Amino acid sequence: MKIVRPTLLLDKQRCLKNIEQMSEKAKRNELIFRPHFKTHQSIQIGNWFRDFGVKQITVSSVQMAQYFAAAGWKDITIAFPFNQLEIEDINKLAEKINLNILLIHPESAVFLEKQLKHEVGVLIKIDCGYHRSGILAENTNEIDELVNAISQVGKLNLKGFLTHSGETYHAYSPKQIHAIHEMTKYILKLLKERYLSQFPNLIISIGDTPSCSLEDNFSGIDEIRPGNFVFYDVMQLKLGVCFAEQIAVAVACPVVSKNKKRNEITIYGGGVHLSKEFLLSRDRIQKFGLVVELSENGWSAPLDGMYVSSLSQEHGTIKVPFGKLDQFQIGDVIGILPIHSCMTANSMGEYLTLDGEVLEHL
Amino acid sequence: MKIVRPTLLLDKQRCLKNIEQMSEKAKRNELIFRPHFKTHQSIQIGNWFRDFGVKQITVSSVQMAQYFAAAGWKDITIAFPFNQLEIEDINKLAEKINLNILLIHPESAVFLEKQLKHEVGVLIKIDCGYHRSGILAENTNEIDELVNAISQVGKLNLKGFLTHSGETYHAYSPKQIHAIHEMTKYILKLLKERYLSQFPNLIISIGDTPSCSLEDNFSGIDEIRPGNFVFYDVMQLKLGVCFAEQIAVAVACPVVSKNKKRNEITIYGGGVHLSKEFLLSRDRIQKFGLVVELSENGWSAPLDGMYVSSLSQEHGTIKVPFGKLDQFQIGDVIGILPIHSCMTANSMGEYLTLDGEVLEHL
Repeated sequence: MKIVRPTLLLDKQRCLKNIEQMSEKAKRNELIFRPHFKTHQSIQIGNWFRDFGVKQITVSSVQMAQYFAAAGWKDITIAFPFNQLEIEDINKLAEKINLNILLIHPESAVFLEKQLKHEVGVLIKIDCGYHRSGILAENTNEIDELVNAISQVGKLNLKGFLTHSGETYHAYSPKQIHAIHEMTKYILKLLKERYLSQFPNLIISIGDTPSCSLEDNFSGIDEIRPGNFVFYDVMQLKLGVCFAEQIAVAVACPVVSKNKKRNEITIYGGGVHLSKEFLLSRDRIQKFGLVVELSENGWSAPLDGMYVSSLSQEHGTIKVPFGKLDQFQIGDVIGILPIHSCMTANSMGEYLTLDGEVLEHL
Repeated sequence: MKIVRPTLLLDKQRCLKNIEQMSEKAKRNELIFRPHFKTHQSIQIGNWFRDFGVKQITVSSVQMAQYFAAAGWKDITIAFPFNQLEIEDINKLAEKINLNILLIHPESAVFLEKQLKHEVGVLIKIDCGYHRSGILAENTNEIDELVNAISQVGKLNLKGFLTHSGETYHAYSPKQIHAIHEMTKYILKLLKERYLSQFPNLIISIGDTPSCSLEDNFSGIDEIRPGNFVFYDVMQLKLGVCFAEQIAVAVACPVVSKNKKRNEITIYGGGVHLSKEFLLSRDRIQKFGLVVELSENGWSAPLDGMYVSSLSQEHGTIKVPFGKLDQFQIGDVIGILPIHSCMTANSMGEYLTLDGEVLEHL
């Protein structure tokens, strides 16, 4: 297939390998594997998980839950704080599938007592240190209050505690990720012990790709919900969470201009394609993507010293090392490894596999 | 209309006023008004410009040109470096409409000599100091070479010189924007004088919203191509380019959680809705949007001391001033003024006017 404009390439083999590895780790550790589908948001890619025995999934919006429910998924956790304004759609979903929602506030239980028409599972969102949302694990009074409020609503089935250790994305080393993981396990273990006699089937669910990829000890954990691992990206590469050969997506971008004085290439490929996510290098340089050479069978390792240095709406600027500019011609197509593949996939809206198959994105 | 999830609200009256003001300024200064439609990318909003006599437009991709050509626009400049890989679509467009393309490199003229099937207008992209793309205005040898290459291709009609003073977006004050505008005019005046005897109909086209909004002297300029002014945004507000009452879009977001200890609100509204654009305050705090109160007739001025402090894929976190948290309840819907409205509109994909009309986005 001829590429003439920014196109999100997907290496299906790498993707399947990523799924296989995570699925095997889950089996080895006797964990429920409930992958987060917000990264790919694709019915076809979702279907690839079925071959690995996956029947339970995670999403981050009611719309995603509707999309995957329509594709036959029957057990879905919406890992986003319950939004009472969407109760109508939640009721429709709960009629058809096993739906789990996330609660943080007792007033949501009160609201649901009046409005909920079908049974749903509930996970209490616990904040183990990321401080985005959820109840701080140490605030057992607040947790007690919410547990009681949930217990009083017949249609709410308390399933367990869920956390997202998103601070692993800001770690400086795999060692720091390990420390966060150990702390998270310890905090959740105490919590489980506190409530286990009252709720013997209580599960503990964790979700971040860095911990799930790097760690091997999940004692006390019952479920993992990683999402990003399906594609990985430059952020995970820099964290030491994946190898470059595991990154399964690249945006193919036409070269439209060259500047000899600044040793730069201009590509057709901007913020609306890659998203505006960037990483800061140690010397405080913003990098919006790494550059790879495309071939029939995929793409090369990231090219040394090359990176996307800025993004406008449709333009990207690539810094080229001294003496290498002549290797790139106007009309060439080069590949960009995204900083954050979830955001890039969401911006691009569809995938092209190396075999030429087009896959949809919600 | 009931809002239950992130929704891009459009204040049509503000939008029409923004269009009217820019259109009048163009008339007053006898400038061709060729607005950039990349900001709204909407057939319906595009149609609003027709009442102000607009017949010529700017876009930033071949796909946008196709979209607006299909909606009846007959004179379109693609203000993006010519991408030779899209020659097939460019040929189809040039058959039907007056199409202008942007050239930087003589080899593109050589390519077009062989591949172009219909006449197109050409603008030479000049770099007046933004250093994204284009030929540096002082490199007259390079410009001569390109002018000659263009002259040798029968189907290429040299129309003029085009620049985008994007550095005005990084200015620290309206005074600095003024200085950039004056320098740009001076540079382009010299250039026009150099080529006017050879090409008496040569035009000079400038485009940035900051200059076009703030400046009143356009001597030597023939055409303006601002885009962002149709909505404006927090970036333009902070630059002193617009007033808050001119910002014509806001993302309505449900409140899904509150945190008393951190004085924060969690909203349903993340990077996939607002885009990850942010501004750094003087004390180096990242702000991903300002907060407004929504009402039947639109929204309030930005609420003092409140801002979006971080964005995940679907979550947003809002910092609330001390003592104000009780004013916000779970289930409320609040408005976020975007940092960069072009990116937000592109992420959201459609508009809801205050009258309840849904407008499309490419």
